[in-house]
Amino acid sequence: ILNGDKRVCYSMTEKAAGADATGMQTTAVKDGKGNYVLNGEKWFSSAATAADIAVVMAKTNPDAPRHQQFSTFIVELPNPGYKIIRDIPTMAVHGPHYHEMGGGHAEVKIENLVVPEANLLGGEGMGFAMGQHRLAYGRLRHGMHNVAMAQRALDLATEQVTTRSTFGKGLEDRQGVQFMLAECASQLYIARLMLIHIAYKAENGMDIRQENGIAKVFLANMVHKVVDTAIQLHGALGYSLDTPLAAWYTHIRSQRLVDGPDEVHKWITGKNVIRAYKKDGTTAAAAGGDIL
Amino acid sequence: ILNGDKRVCYSMTEKAAGADATGMQTTAVKDGKGNYVLNGEKWFSSAATAADIAVVMAKTNPDAPRHQQFSTFIVELPNPGYKIIRDIPTMAVHGPHYHEMGGGHAEVKIENLVVPEANLLGGEGMGFAMGQHRLAYGRLRHGMHNVAMAQRALDLATEQVTTRSTFGKGLEDRQGVQFMLAECASQLYIARLMLIHIAYKAENGMDIRQENGIAKVFLANMVHKVVDTAIQLHGALGYSLDTPLAAWYTHIRSQRLVDGPDEVHKWITGKNVIRAYKKDGTTAAAAGGDIL
Amino acid sequence: ILNGDKRVCYSMTEKAAGADATGMQTTAVKDGKGNYVLNGEKWFSSAATAADIAVVMAKTNPDAPRHQQFSTFIVELPNPGYKIIRDIPTMAVHGPHYHEMGGGHAEVKIENLVVPEANLLGGEGMGFAMGQHRLAYGRLRHGMHNVAMAQRALDLATEQVTTRSTFGKGLEDRQGVQFMLAECASQLYIARLMLIHIAYKAENGMDIRQENGIAKVFLANMVHKVVDTAIQLHGALGYSLDTPLAAWYTHIRSQRLVDGPDEVHKWITGKNVIRAYKKDGTTAAAAGGDIL
Amino acid sequence: ILNGDKRVCYSMTEKAAGADATGMQTTAVKDGKGNYVLNGEKWFSSAATAADIAVVMAKTNPDAPRHQQFSTFIVELPNPGYKIIRDIPTMAVHGPHYHEMGGGHAEVKIENLVVPEANLLGGEGMGFAMGQHRLAYGRLRHGMHNVAMAQRALDLATEQVTTRSTFGKGLEDRQGVQFMLAECASQLYIARLMLIHIAYKAENGMDIRQENGIAKVFLANMVHKVVDTAIQLHGALGYSLDTPLAAWYTHIRSQRLVDGPDEVHKWITGKNVIRAYKKDGTTAAAAGGDIL
Ligand SMILES: Cc1cc2nc3c(=O)[nH]c(=O)nc-3n(C[C@H](O)[C@H](O)[C@H](O)COP(=O)(O)OP(=O)(O)OC[C@H]3O[C@@H](n4cnc5c(N)ncnc54)[C@H](O)[C@@H]3O)c2cc1C
Ligand SMILES: Cc1cc2nc3c(=O)[nH]c(=O)nc-3n(C[C@H](O)[C@H](O)[C@H](O)COP(=O)(O)OP(=O)(O)OC[C@H]3O[C@@H](n4cnc5c(N)ncnc54)[C@H](O)[C@@H]3O)c2cc1C
Ligand SMILES: Cc1cc2nc3c(=O)[nH]c(=O)nc-3n(C[C@H](O)[C@H](O)[C@H](O)COP(=O)(O)OP(=O)(O)OC[C@H]3O[C@@H](n4cnc5c(N)ncnc54)[C@H](O)[C@@H]3O)c2cc1C
Ligand SMILES: Cc1cc2nc3c(=O)[nH]c(=O)nc-3n(C[C@H](O)[C@H](O)[C@H](O)COP(=O)(O)OP(=O)(O)OC[C@H]3O[C@@H](n4cnc5c(N)ncnc54)[C@H](O)[C@@H]3O)c2cc1C
Repeated sequence: ILNGDKRVCYSMTEKAAGADATGMQTTAVKDGKGNYVLNGEKWFSSAATAADIAVVMAKTNPDAPRHQQFSTFIVELPNPGYKIIRDIPTMAVHGPHYHEMGGGHAEVKIENLVVPEANLLGGEGMGFAMGQHRLAYGRLRHGMHNVAMAQRALDLATEQVTTRSTFGKGLEDRQGVQFMLAECASQLYIARLMLIHIAYKAENGMDIRQENGIAKVFLANMVHKVVDTAIQLHGALGYSLDTPLAAWYTHIRSQRLVDGPDEVHKWITGKNVIRAYKKDGTTAAAAGGDIL
Repeated sequence: ILNGDKRVCYSMTEKAAGADATGMQTTAVKDGKGNYVLNGEKWFSSAATAADIAVVMAKTNPDAPRHQQFSTFIVELPNPGYKIIRDIPTMAVHGPHYHEMGGGHAEVKIENLVVPEANLLGGEGMGFAMGQHRLAYGRLRHGMHNVAMAQRALDLATEQVTTRSTFGKGLEDRQGVQFMLAECASQLYIARLMLIHIAYKAENGMDIRQENGIAKVFLANMVHKVVDTAIQLHGALGYSLDTPLAAWYTHIRSQRLVDGPDEVHKWITGKNVIRAYKKDGTTAAAAGGDIL
Repeated sequence: ILNGDKRVCYSMTEKAAGADATGMQTTAVKDGKGNYVLNGEKWFSSAATAADIAVVMAKTNPDAPRHQQFSTFIVELPNPGYKIIRDIPTMAVHGPHYHEMGGGHAEVKIENLVVPEANLLGGEGMGFAMGQHRLAYGRLRHGMHNVAMAQRALDLATEQVTTRSTFGKGLEDRQGVQFMLAECASQLYIARLMLIHIAYKAENGMDIRQENGIAKVFLANMVHKVVDTAIQLHGALGYSLDTPLAAWYTHIRSQRLVDGPDEVHKWITGKNVIRAYKKDGTTAAAAGGDIL
Repeated sequence: ILNGDKRVCYSMTEKAAGADATGMQTTAVKDGKGNYVLNGEKWFSSAATAADIAVVMAKTNPDAPRHQQFSTFIVELPNPGYKIIRDIPTMAVHGPHYHEMGGGHAEVKIENLVVPEANLLGGEGMGFAMGQHRLAYGRLRHGMHNVAMAQRALDLATEQVTTRSTFGKGLEDRQGVQFMLAECASQLYIARLMLIHIAYKAENGMDIRQENGIAKVFLANMVHKVVDTAIQLHGALGYSLDTPLAAWYTHIRSQRLVDGPDEVHKWITGKNVIRAYKKDGTTAAAAGGDIL
C-alpha cells in the first residue's frame, strides 16, 4: 500500500449513516473458523471499482459504548461478498481518464463477506480511533490540493479579465471586478496561513483538532468561492467545459459534505469554544490563542 | 411560432462578445439581389440543434451609433450557411430527454448565410431595441421557474430533515438546520414578492427596468442558495443524481451569467440610483419608492 | 391614551428574562382589599421617566401553564411603588430633545406597588395573548420608520458620492461604489415589498405571523446595512455627528434585539417551515406561497 | 517623543481630502526668514487637544508630481497659528477618562502658522514617503489591539451563553448560538495568523504591502463581527453600557475608515493581483504564495 502498488478504497458510509457514522448497520460476526462474516450495505465508497483493497468498517460489539462498537477490516478485492451494485451517478463532470482512475463512488452490497481474523485492523472496537487519525492527515493533503486549485482558478480569472473588454473598458479596470479578485486573494492567503500553521502543529505533535475543524470548513468554502468567481468572470466560457473551471466546480461541491459536513464542524467548533471557556476561563485556546 | 409548432433559437452571443453584445463581429451585407449575406460565428445558441428557426443578430450599419448598428434576422433551419460546429459541453447534468429537447448550446459557423430581405425583423438597426423587450418578459417566466424550483428544493430539504437523525437527534430539531430553512423561506418569500410586483407593473405598462435588474440578480442567487442548502442537508445523497437537486445545481449556475451577468445588472442598478437622485433629489424611484 | 394625551411605557422585560419573557419574576398578589400588590424589578422600560402610565406585566398564576401565568396591569405614574432607579446608559447617541422625549430606558424597582383590580387588563393570565397583538401592529410602524430612515440614508449616501472625488475620479463613477448603492436599493426595495404585503394581509385579517417574523429580521438588518453603507461612503464625516447617520447607527443596533432577537425569529421561522411541511406536504405556506 | 514624555498628534486629513490625501489644500510657503508659513484647515486630528506636538502635512511644491507636493512639519503646541475649533462629536461612547486622554478628534484652523525650517521632517516633498512607513507599523499595533478586544468580546459572549437560559434551555446548548461562536473563533484565529505572518515578514524586511492591505480590511471587519455577535448574545445588556461591548462597538466603527477605507484597500489589493499576474504569469505573489 505504502509504495502505491495497491489501490485502496474506504467503505464506512452507508445510506443510513454518514455524518454520524455510529449509525452504521453493517455487522461483522465471528464464524468460529478464524473469520469474520460481514453483512450490510455501503455507499459512496470512492474508487471501489478500481481498488485492490477495501477498508471496511462494521459493527463487532453492539453492546459496547457507541464509539467502541465498530472495527475496521482489510478486504482484498475483488471479492464475491463485496458486490458493487453501481457507481452512483453524481454532479461531477467526468474527465477523460475518469474510469481508469476509478473516479466513481460505489454502492456496495456486502453479503456474507468472509474476512480472516488476521485482517482485523487495530483490534476490535478500534474503528473510530483509527478513522480520526486518518482524517487529520487527510486535511493537509486535501488542503494543499484546494490551494493549488484555487490558485490556478485565480490565475485563470486574472488572465481572463486582463484580456476581455466590455462596454468600452477592460474588465481589469472595473473596480467591481478588482474587488472580486481582492476577495479571492484574501481567501487564498488565509487558506495558506491555515495550512502552514496546521502542518507546523502536526509536525510538532500538537493538538490540531480545533484548527483542523475551522480549516476544513474554510478551505471547502474558499475553493468554491474562488472557482465560482473565476467562472463568473469567464461568462459562458466558464460554464462550458472549455476551461477546467466548470468541472472543478462540480467536484468541489462534495467537499462541504465529506470528512464531516460544514454544519457538524461548525457545531463542534462552537462547542470547543464553550469547553475552552469552562476549562480556562477564556476561549483563547479555541481561537488560535497559542499563536499570540 | 406563437402556437408552438416551430421551435426557435436565438443567436446573438459570440465568443468575442456577450455581456456587451455590441462587440458582435458577425456582419450582414446586402447582395443587391434582395438578400442579406451573413458571415461570422456565434456560440451558446441554445437549442439550435433542434430549432426550426434561428433569430440571428448581425451588424448591418457599422457607421451608425453603437446601439443602432445591429439588426435581427429570421433564418429557417437547417441552412447550409448556418453550420453547427458542436454542442458546447457544459457543467449541466444531462437529463434523460436532453437530446430530444435540444438542450445543447451550439457553436455555429455562419458562412455566406443568405437571408431574404423580407426576413429582416423590425427594420435595420433595430436589433437591440427588440432584444430589450424580449428580456423583460423573459424575466417573469424565468422567475416563476426559479420560484417553482426553489419551492420544490425547500420541500425536499424539509422532507429530508424530518426523516434523518444524526448524533441522537432529528436534523429538524437542530437550531442550525432551522436557521438554514428560515433563510431559504425568507429568500423564497422575497422572490415571490418581487415577481408579483413586477407582473403588476408590467401589466399596467409601468417602467420595470430597475425592479427587473434587481430581481434578475436576486432570483438567480436565491435559487442557487436554496438548492445549495437542500443539497447540503441531503449530504452525499444531495450530491448524487438520486434526487433532482444536483442536476438543478449545475443548470442554474448559468443564471448568474445569461440575460446579463450579475455584475452588469448591479452596475446598472447602482447607476440608476445615482440617476434617480440627480433627477429627483431622492433615490426613491430607484429603490421601490412607488410602493409606499 | 388613544388621542395621545397620555404617554405610556411598557414594563415587561427584567434583567432575568427578555427574549423568553416567561422567566419574569415580578409577582402580583391580591391583597383582599380590591388591589393587586406587585413586587419585583424591570429594566429597559423605554420612556418610563416621561410616561403617565406604565403597562406592567407580572405573574399572577404561578401554577397555570407557562403562557397563562402572567397578567397585565395599568399603573398610573408617578407611583411610589414604581421606582425608577436609573436610565440605563446605552450606546445610543443622545439627540438634542432626548430628555424631553423621555428617550431613556429605565431600570425600575417595583416595591409593594398597589394596583386596583379594575386596572387588570384583559383578565388574569392574559398577559401574553395581548402582547402578541401589540407586536404585530408595531411591526408595521417600526417597518415604515425603518424604510424612511434607510431611504434618507441612501439619499445622503448618493448625494455624497455625487459630490466627492478621490484619486482623480468621482466616487459615483467607481463600480465598487455603484455596487454598494445597488445593494442598498435592492434591500430597500425588498423592505417596501414586505411592508405593503404585510399591511395587506393584516388589513384583510389574514395570518401574518410567518411574514412578520421574516420581515422583523430583514428590516432590522436592512436598515443597518443601508445606514452602515452611507456612513462608509461619507468617511470620517459619516462617523461624526455632523450628519444624522452616526446617531442612527447607534439607535438601530437595538432593533436586532427588541421585539424578539434575530435568533429567536429565525428559529421560529425555521420551525414554521417544518410545521407547514408536516401539515401540507409542502413548505409553501411558510414561504410566501399564497402570493403565487 | 520616543520615551513617551511628549504626546504627538497627526494632522493630515482635511474636510476636503481624506482617503486621497493628495487633495489637501493646506499650503506651506517660505517667508524668507528661515520659516515656513502654513495656512489651511485640518480635521480629525486625534488627540490634538492633549498633544504637545502636531505633525502637520502641507503642500510645499504645487508643481511637483502629485505625490511629491507635500511635506511634513513638526509643530510645537499650543501655537496661536494652530487653532482648535472644536472636538468633532462622533458616535464613540465617551469613557470615564475620555478628556484626560485627549480622546477627541479636533477640527483645526491653521492660520499663518510659523514653523522654523529646521522643523521640516525628511525634506521637501517627502510627506507621503514617510506616511507609508508609519502606516505599516501601525497595522501591527492596531491589529494586536483588535485581537485583544475581539478575544475579550468572545470571552464575554461565551460567559453570557453559559449562564443564560431561554425557553427552557441554556443558550450554550443552541446550535445556532454554537455556530455564532464558531464563526467568531474562526475569524479570530485567522486574525492571529495574519498578524504573526505580517510581523514575521516585517521583521525580516520583506515587502508586506499586499498582506497589510488584506489584513487591514479583515481585522477591522473581524473585530466588528465578534463584538457585534457578543452584543447580540447579551441582548439588551449588550446594548447598555453595563458591559464594555457597546462602547467598543462605537469606537471600532471608525476602523473601516481610518488608515485607508475598506474600499480603497480592496481596490489596491485587486490591482495588485492583476499586477502580479502581469509580472509573473501567476497571481501567487499577491495571494500569500510565498507561504507554500
Ligand atoms: C464525493 C464523495 C465521496 C465520498 N467518499 C467516501 C468514501 O470513500 N468512503 C466513505 O466511507 N464515505 C465516503 N463519502 C461519504 C461521506 O463521508 C458522507 O457523505 C459524509 O460523512 C456525510 O454523510 P451523509 O452523506 O450520510 O450525510 P448525513 O449524515 O445524512 O447529513 C446530511 C446533512 O445534514 C446536516 N447535518 C448532519 N448532522 C448534523 C448536525 N449534528 N447538526 C447540524 N446539521 C447536521 C449536514 O448539513 C449534512 O450535510 C463520500 C461522499 C461524497 C459526497
Ligand atoms: C447556458 C447558457 C445559455 C445561453 N443561451 C444563449 C442563447 O440562446 N443565445 C445567445 O445569443 N446567447 C446565449 N448565451 C450567452 C449569454 O447571453 C452570455 O453568456 C452572456 O451575455 C454573457 O456574455 P459572455 O459569456 O460573453 O461574458 P462576458 O461578456 O465575457 O463577461 C464575462 C464576465 O465578466 C464580467 N463583466 C462583464 N462586463 C462587466 C462590467 N461592465 N462590469 C463588471 N463586470 C463585467 C461578468 O462577471 C461577466 O460574467 C447563453 C449562455 C449560457 C451560459
Ligand atoms: C433599546 C431597547 C428598548 C427596549 N424597550 C423595552 C420596553 O419598552 N419594555 C420592555 O419590556 N422591554 C424593552 N426592551 C427589552 C427587550 O424586549 C429585550 O431586550 C428583548 O426581549 C431581549 O431580551 P434580553 O435582552 O433579556 O435578551 P436574552 O433573552 O438574554 O437573549 C440574549 C440573546 O440570546 C440569544 N437567544 C435568546 N434566546 C435564544 C434562542 N432560543 N435561540 C437562540 N438564541 C437565543 C439572542 O441572540 C438574544 O439576543 C428594550 C430593549 C432595548 C435594547
Ligand atoms: C476616528 C478617526 C480618527 C482619525 N484620526 C486622524 C488623525 O489623527 N489624523 C489624520 O490626519 N486623520 C485622521 N482621521 C481621518 C482619516 O484618515 C480619514 O477619515 C480617512 O483617510 C478617510 O478619509 P475621508 O474621511 O475624507 O473619506 P473620503 O476620502 O471622503 O472617502 C469616503 C469614502 O468613500 C469611499 N472611497 C473613497 N475613495 C474610494 C475609491 N477610490 N474607490 C472606492 N471607494 C472610495 C470609501 O468608502 C470611503 O470611506 C481619522 C478619522 C477617524 C474616523
